[in-house]
Amino acid sequence: MENPSNPDLIMFTRGNPDTDALPLDDIITCATDIFRREGRVLFQYGHYSGYGPLRQWLADYLKADYEQVLIGNSSMEFLTFIGSALLAPGDTVWLENPSYDRAITAMRRLGARIVGLPLEADGIDLDAMQAAVRKQVPKLFYLVPEFQNPSGVTTSLAKREAIAQLAREHGFYIIEDAPYRPLRYRGMDIPTFRELAPEQTLHVCSFSKLLSPGMRVGFLIGPEALMPRLHKWSEDTYIHPTLVSEGIAYEYCRRGLLMPNITKLRALYKPRMEAMQDALKRHLPQASWAETDGGFFLGLTLPDNVDGNAVRENDTAFGIKLADGRGFFCDDSGTNFVRLPFCGMTAEESEEGVKRLAKLVSHYTL
Amino acid sequence: MENPSNPDLIMFTRGNPDTDALPLDDIITCATDIFRREGRVLFQYGHYSGYGPLRQWLADYLKADYEQVLIGNSSMEFLTFIGSALLAPGDTVWLENPSYDRAITAMRRLGARIVGLPLEADGIDLDAMQAAVRKQVPKLFYLVPEFQNPSGVTTSLAKREAIAQLAREHGFYIIEDAPYRPLRYRGMDIPTFRELAPEQTLHVCSFSKLLSPGMRVGFLIGPEALMPRLHKWSEDTYIHPTLVSEGIAYEYCRRGLLMPNITKLRALYKPRMEAMQDALKRHLPQASWAETDGGFFLGLTLPDNVDGNAVRENDTAFGIKLADGRGFFCDDSGTNFVRLPFCGMTAEESEEGVKRLAKLVSHYTL
Repeated sequence: MENPSNPDLIMFTRGNPDTDALPLDDIITCATDIFRREGRVLFQYGHYSGYGPLRQWLADYLKADYEQVLIGNSSMEFLTFIGSALLAPGDTVWLENPSYDRAITAMRRLGARIVGLPLEADGIDLDAMQAAVRKQVPKLFYLVPEFQNPSGVTTSLAKREAIAQLAREHGFYIIEDAPYRPLRYRGMDIPTFRELAPEQTLHVCSFSKLLSPGMRVGFLIGPEALMPRLHKWSEDTYIHPTLVSEGIAYEYCRRGLLMPNITKLRALYKPRMEAMQDALKRHLPQASWAETDGGFFLGLTLPDNVDGNAVRENDTAFGIKLADGRGFFCDDSGTNFVRLPFCGMTAEESEEGVKRLAKLVSHYTL
Repeated sequence: MENPSNPDLIMFTRGNPDTDALPLDDIITCATDIFRREGRVLFQYGHYSGYGPLRQWLADYLKADYEQVLIGNSSMEFLTFIGSALLAPGDTVWLENPSYDRAITAMRRLGARIVGLPLEADGIDLDAMQAAVRKQVPKLFYLVPEFQNPSGVTTSLAKREAIAQLAREHGFYIIEDAPYRPLRYRGMDIPTFRELAPEQTLHVCSFSKLLSPGMRVGFLIGPEALMPRLHKWSEDTYIHPTLVSEGIAYEYCRRGLLMPNITKLRALYKPRMEAMQDALKRHLPQASWAETDGGFFLGLTLPDNVDGNAVRENDTAFGIKLADGRGFFCDDSGTNFVRLPFCGMTAEESEEGVKRLAKLVSHYTL
């Protein structure tokens, strides 16, 4: 992805989908059609849980009951909804360490006690989890089980089962953030937490990575028992979410366009993922990263003899822009962590970007 | 407004605009045009404060600086943003009594100490305000200065000046909720709190009553000093608001369609307001209400010898549906308060609805 103010700078900062991959013609056709057909509904006040036909479509698609589906203005806002509705002051929230930076911020903002569980190449360290639960049972455990943002890690089935088991035993809730799940470029799907522990799981997902981020249409599938509280939180926050983009998303799904678009995105992004992994192997073999099978990100850990602060502070001098790796960690670590988004980059940009990164890293290697 | 499940029931419950008044043809034209022109921006990730061109349009329209403008997914959600960003536990919030029920809920949910100041026909009771400030200086004062929801009351200039003066003296912030302000059907505009005390005022408004509620596009104009906190709260809540409907609203404004639409709505709603006031004079002269000059609502207080609980509980038997008046009050009062929305009703429906209400009231008069 290029930076308009400096077209030569390669931006490793944000995980945007490729703008060229937005199916704008189809979106416009769907919008015009549903606005004509359903405009009197979509532009009037509506239901606090979202546009009914899209809720029904999602319920069918995700094998859930209608009442289990809540649509909102992004999946991210659900973190605030869930935390506000379920957390009491001083409650503990677990996250993977590293984790999605915005999730850490959301949970901090809610006043939760944050505990980061060390993330390994196949999910969190289970011994650390057992030690943590002996200290304090959490109220919530937020994780991104597939192609994690920022590390690219996918939690193995064995670890999912252990986590699901612990959640059932201690009655805490798992927030399963799954925006990348359909974007698997190789290997086989692993059962979701919603399948393994349906009564303990709040499964959140969105159309941002599968169709369009600017629409801000996220959805949540939760246990029946929790839903009234979440539906009410939605109503009391904004009366109802934005129906206009929900209508477009519905029409897009109803016409059977979503799965072909996901297939198209997989075909576009798979070689980009491979190109970046190849470039890393060639230019930065001294760094370590988890091989990923999908999603948007690779998470690089630079060797200990690299001055990660200097790398970050001097990125633009080397023609790249990096996110601050420390933002993804619940503690003070992350200085030598680099998140590399690959979906918005051609193979050539990836190659060039990683080459520049390697030069920058070698410059600050002691 | 009819109830689809019982077409004969007259619904006095919600303040929806007239669905027939939604300018759907223009909305669809604007949508198609801006989606083609700006689709790569509107359907991609965007800025946390909203779609730039709409922010600039609003800044020009409202004579504010660009940084003072925050766009969000409804004006209502700003109450949560403002409260979350500015309130500490135990802080006091003032509201008019009665007030917008959803504002009371939002402030309660934030854990604020709620104080309701008695509302008179020209705004709150100033003596009560002076007594309240001696007890406890509030952090925020939420009010709807024009055509208040639910009472229809407009705060006089003299009272606005007294409130603005007190806010400056004690450093509290006024949340000026002004969704109905442009919908004045007679009389002259009164200066806003933003004009009287710009450094103390968070002015919130939206396109819900002026164009379309389903779009959920609200906007806030605040003092420079507070804006960074609010912009950040927006980003940390949902990355950014829904660009799709902001794009439509922008195109609608850019083409100069907003003012003609407001003019059209005034022409449609003015006789409806008059029809309802006339019907009340004819059929319910024993009730009291503030004459309103705009907006959506009349707020009726039934005489003390009417059993308000019985009226509310038996409404459908008399062919009408009423909102629970108690929801608009910060204390336990409101049993005999009835909010009557008039914009979604033809003069004939108003006449018939008020006749039924009069019959219901007389049935439960002691």
